[in-house]
Amino acid sequence: MPELRKDPISARWSIISTERSKRPEAFVANAPKRTDALDATCPFDEGREDQTCPEILSYRKKDSDKNGPGWSVRVVPNSEPVLKVEGDLGRRGVGMFDMMNGIGAHEIIIETPRHEEHIPEMENSQVENILWAYRDRIVDLYRDKRIKSVMVFKNHRINPEFTHNHSLSQLIALPILPKHVKEEMAGAKDYYDFKERCLYCDIVRQEIAEGIRVVDENKNFLLFCPYASRSPFEVNIIPKEHNSAYTTITKEAIMDLAEIIKRYLKKIKAALNDPPYNMMFHTRPSFVTPRQTVSTIDKDYHWHIEIVPKLTKLAGFEWGTGFFINPTSPEEGASFLRNLEDY
Amino acid sequence: MPELRKDPISARWSIISTERSKRPEAFVANAPKRTDALDATCPFDEGREDQTCPEILSYRKKDSDKNGPGWSVRVVPNSEPVLKVEGDLGRRGVGMFDMMNGIGAHEIIIETPRHEEHIPEMENSQVENILWAYRDRIVDLYRDKRIKSVMVFKNHRINPEFTHNHSLSQLIALPILPKHVKEEMAGAKDYYDFKERCLYCDIVRQEIAEGIRVVDENKNFLLFCPYASRSPFEVNIIPKEHNSAYTTITKEAIMDLAEIIKRYLKKIKAALNDPPYNMMFHTRPSFVTPRQTVSTIDKDYHWHIEIVPKLTKLAGFEWGTGFFINPTSPEEGASFLRNLEDY
Repeated sequence: MPELRKDPISARWSIISTERSKRPEAFVANAPKRTDALDATCPFDEGREDQTCPEILSYRKKDSDKNGPGWSVRVVPNSEPVLKVEGDLGRRGVGMFDMMNGIGAHEIIIETPRHEEHIPEMENSQVENILWAYRDRIVDLYRDKRIKSVMVFKNHRINPEFTHNHSLSQLIALPILPKHVKEEMAGAKDYYDFKERCLYCDIVRQEIAEGIRVVDENKNFLLFCPYASRSPFEVNIIPKEHNSAYTTITKEAIMDLAEIIKRYLKKIKAALNDPPYNMMFHTRPSFVTPRQTVSTIDKDYHWHIEIVPKLTKLAGFEWGTGFFINPTSPEEGASFLRNLEDY
Repeated sequence: MPELRKDPISARWSIISTERSKRPEAFVANAPKRTDALDATCPFDEGREDQTCPEILSYRKKDSDKNGPGWSVRVVPNSEPVLKVEGDLGRRGVGMFDMMNGIGAHEIIIETPRHEEHIPEMENSQVENILWAYRDRIVDLYRDKRIKSVMVFKNHRINPEFTHNHSLSQLIALPILPKHVKEEMAGAKDYYDFKERCLYCDIVRQEIAEGIRVVDENKNFLLFCPYASRSPFEVNIIPKEHNSAYTTITKEAIMDLAEIIKRYLKKIKAALNDPPYNMMFHTRPSFVTPRQTVSTIDKDYHWHIEIVPKLTKLAGFEWGTGFFINPTSPEEGASFLRNLEDY
């Protein structure tokens, strides 16, 4: 019997399909073809710093020059930004409709100077540098009072024309709260109002107690397949200690986070033939919705990371119906990932 | 300057991009490649009725036999349904999580007995038959008290392996309200509570008054590019007269609807090289949410159709951020479609 499962955060339902079910191993055989071509003129490589916009931030050798070689992580504006930094919001009505100017920022985090190195191949310290760069940029952008939310995300192998197959992430700073952030906040707030406990903390406790969806953990983080997973091998990474803001992360937690992310990405790269994936950081917005005061969002919201490998192509079902069909239960997916030889 | 625009129904924001903007004509040149192969053994063709599940509904010649030739439209269960018709809902908790059995229906509407005929090539009367079949199936499924919502949708050229390139639509009946239906209902209800007017009726009035996003209209329907369009040439088709339920549609309105759908699909087929698209019917659920009584949903909800051509592939941006970037403003898109020679 197929199961309908409800995500407690977003209130979204997923169908965990049994008729169309696929054993995790099926994705190994049908793993997506690699189409990446080597790129001899990648603008993100060390030595080609003049081919990107001037850097906003870089971690580099003491004696090296800005916008020259000698960096480990580099953040630059997108050369074709979808949002503009300059100007005012100009929020206004157009008859019954609402609009505002597209104020914000769109930045690229160049994760490594070396073209062929992706996260599974990096030293842990390099992954830590990337995670620090995210933090530094969010802190800086939240100083701008026009910016309400910053989203850090990484699309691996999803758009090779854009990335040149260089290891990159992106950051979008917006003067609004995107819908899915609002929904998460509303779900977390409703739960907190009802239970007087953090929804995410309760999920962490239940996942640890049940164990069947847990893939990995260390002192600071839990990595598991969420109960109402939208797709096979989707995982959440949640700090075990309650915390609403990624920006407050400690040095020790950054080390744990780098380790657990790298281990997961190494596993899926090896076992699923380097699948495309999307990774997204969910952290508290700079401001609060009308329903929330500063003090409650820090109590009821809990920052976390979602990673969704792109392995299925299911008849455009999601486009048609707005809900997800997952052919592999999160319990099966987690067990498959758990049992891969250690990385 | 890029614009951020808010959809008044779902409260979703879209970026109408100017830096990455594309003139509508750009999509003609970059129109997606046709990959459809002819299928000599399509199970949906007339004469191969034994290759599908037995029919649930068919419109056929008086003297023809069920599950034999002689039909114009035929509805069959999906042979690999994601939901089951038999059983009870068994809604229950799993610790803090919620689930229920995957009860529901998944049906295929075979829109024509002729393999090579798609909507732009059909007689209007054939399109009307398809629209009647949708109505008859929704009415029938809503008799089942376990079913809360029925979604009718069509994915053209999105999954050719599934459709064999035969003109099909699908129907999913669910014991829950999918998130996007709930959101639409909530948006419409909030607006009604505030204004004491239907949100969709107000949109129809404003779109007709402004004219710049209108593509087509006839006595009963308006076809326009919505203000916060997610993608180029996306359109909504809304009945001009207030009505919450597609199932109450009149014969005259079915004729108008067939005409306006066919004309739009003919236009995009000719001008954009037969792009893939998703078409979805949004009609009131069989029941009401806790916030709504039967009497208010019929006042504040308004059935409509969304058609979204799939023309852009934008860096997996939507996956990363949960909001949409549209490189072509709906005003430009509407003007392009309006000015195509008459079909």
